[in-house]
Amino acid sequence: MTDDAPEVPPVGEWLRGSGPESDIVLSSRIRLARNVVGFPLRARLGEEESHELCEHLQPRIEAAGLAPDLDFVSLEELTDIDRLVLVERHVISLEHANGLGDRGVVSDEPGRIALMLNEEDHLRIQCLASGLDLNSIFDRSREIERKLAALIDFAFHARFGYLTSCPTNVGTGMRVSVMLHLPALVFAKQIDKVFNSVSKMNLAVRGFYGEGTKALSDLYQISNQVTLGRSAEKLLDDVRRVLPKIVAFERDVRKQLLDNDRLVVEDRVWRALGILRTARTIASEEAFEHLSLIRMGVHLGLIEELDIESVNRTFNLCQPGHLQASQGGGPLETRHRDIVRARLIRESLAEGGGSSSG
Amino acid sequence: MTDDAPEVPPVGEWLRGSGPESDIVLSSRIRLARNVVGFPLRARLGEEESHELCEHLQPRIEAAGLAPDLDFVSLEELTDIDRLVLVERHVISLEHANGLGDRGVVSDEPGRIALMLNEEDHLRIQCLASGLDLNSIFDRSREIERKLAALIDFAFHARFGYLTSCPTNVGTGMRVSVMLHLPALVFAKQIDKVFNSVSKMNLAVRGFYGEGTKALSDLYQISNQVTLGRSAEKLLDDVRRVLPKIVAFERDVRKQLLDNDRLVVEDRVWRALGILRTARTIASEEAFEHLSLIRMGVHLGLIEELDIESVNRTFNLCQPGHLQASQGGGPLETRHRDIVRARLIRESLAEGGGSSSG
Repeated sequence: MTDDAPEVPPVGEWLRGSGPESDIVLSSRIRLARNVVGFPLRARLGEEESHELCEHLQPRIEAAGLAPDLDFVSLEELTDIDRLVLVERHVISLEHANGLGDRGVVSDEPGRIALMLNEEDHLRIQCLASGLDLNSIFDRSREIERKLAALIDFAFHARFGYLTSCPTNVGTGMRVSVMLHLPALVFAKQIDKVFNSVSKMNLAVRGFYGEGTKALSDLYQISNQVTLGRSAEKLLDDVRRVLPKIVAFERDVRKQLLDNDRLVVEDRVWRALGILRTARTIASEEAFEHLSLIRMGVHLGLIEELDIESVNRTFNLCQPGHLQASQGGGPLETRHRDIVRARLIRESLAEGGGSSSG
Repeated sequence: MTDDAPEVPPVGEWLRGSGPESDIVLSSRIRLARNVVGFPLRARLGEEESHELCEHLQPRIEAAGLAPDLDFVSLEELTDIDRLVLVERHVISLEHANGLGDRGVVSDEPGRIALMLNEEDHLRIQCLASGLDLNSIFDRSREIERKLAALIDFAFHARFGYLTSCPTNVGTGMRVSVMLHLPALVFAKQIDKVFNSVSKMNLAVRGFYGEGTKALSDLYQISNQVTLGRSAEKLLDDVRRVLPKIVAFERDVRKQLLDNDRLVVEDRVWRALGILRTARTIASEEAFEHLSLIRMGVHLGLIEELDIESVNRTFNLCQPGHLQASQGGGPLETRHRDIVRARLIRESLAEGGGSSSG
């Protein structure tokens, strides 16, 4: 690695593209919100107290021996672009990146484990796995929480459960979420059916970067809405029960599209690849739109010359943070960014370049 | 040539892509309308008389020794698709193809010379050259007319000149027309300026297949409007005088686009190629739109891996007549045609296939 080639983190666990049902489920995530007795909640936490909170948490997290390769990063010491890279890798939340004051994250390189210090809550424990793999991350998050609870006094109310900044998180403080790729349901205008049935089950559909953000590249996050009054197992079960149905629905519609409109689907998928392989300037929204079709095309066997890793790598480098980081880390104007994006995509998806590592 | 590969005529003179100013002027054409003394004009020509007219003209044309490689084809004996191929090669007019009764064409293989028998007039003499080359076709058409007039008694009125079916052709019976590719003027929304200035000069802008047809692929035919009361030299001069201005205008706007919007132009040109190289189904209008940009891109040096012959060959095979003829000559449904077209285009424009002959 030379000085001219800035280090850009690889794709990360969330976009590894393997694991169960990974043709439709990109990744599964569980996060637990915890607050520490003796510190005011985030909204009332002064600058000095924020610092003290981090000083309190960091050594205890280190002492807990959660995993061998965890690193602490102070968000205040990062540039805007490096913080954005962490958001795009789903290691920290957008809110955490844009927050103020002393705050940080303890995580491993692929982002399987990420502990956000002084986010909306004092501590957020996040476990992530590629594909649909809720059980293992549930177990892992419980194990981490158990080890930390031996060293940190988490605020807990006998009747309400864990206390959190936002009332919707009170109780277990747990959010289970799954990132789904649903291009066929969008294509066939069936996606509203998913939204409706999911909302009836007390689950929410969220955008790509979490609450209040837009869906991108036909990616939707489905997660539990409320945690109060329910056990962690019950919450997990709600998601675990509905997920296979959505996966089956998307898979059915993909099959129907192939059976009834194969030509149209093939045409759309290949044109998307044709455009990405030739465009000289491209905005991220358009790139993601085409990449969504290409991802589906690869999984349906319509494009054999690309593997899913190339598609994921391309998706990753299209994102503004990764894109700017790859160019030296300085901020780029939108116009320049669109040109660089087009070039990076052409290189990444070049014919015969499908199996090169990124 | 095997039985499975039906013979489809090559591109022809009109699309050879060489000659003066051929980056903008596809081809130049002169046609003379003549009628024969002793036969009623076309509108009043019965079935029997049509036959007699052809019987009268054919041996005289042969005897005139116009060129060594002329062939007579009876249009009645051709299929609809074969007639369409002749229209697409600009050897006969659409009206001649769709006409009724005994009628035919005498032409050489590339279509440099074409004599239409029993079109709107009894005889139409057409000379065609790639690029902007009005003088040579003017001389050639005069030479042909002179040789034929020695054997055929053309209807001529001392005051009006040559008599024709349509009054707009009375006089010299001459139409001079030039096929121009004006993508930059269309792109920059300056094409109306050309229309306006041309119409002030008593010239007309016509569509791709002649009068009353649409422009296709940014191709426009410019030709003289009226022949009565003017000498052939004067008519030729009108066109010869305005043409260099239009060519210079298109060339200027191309240069301006490159200077000011190079990125946008490159992006559009390359995306057009990307789409044509990947589409699985495509209508002719869309294909021609992309080919127009690609043709400009090749001439501007934006696409170096393709030569203009590949672009012209691709344009040619996209046309309904050529397309259906290449598939065995039977009529194809639109849906099927769009699929075949997409495949032929992909093959014709494939990477590394730019210099293969068609």
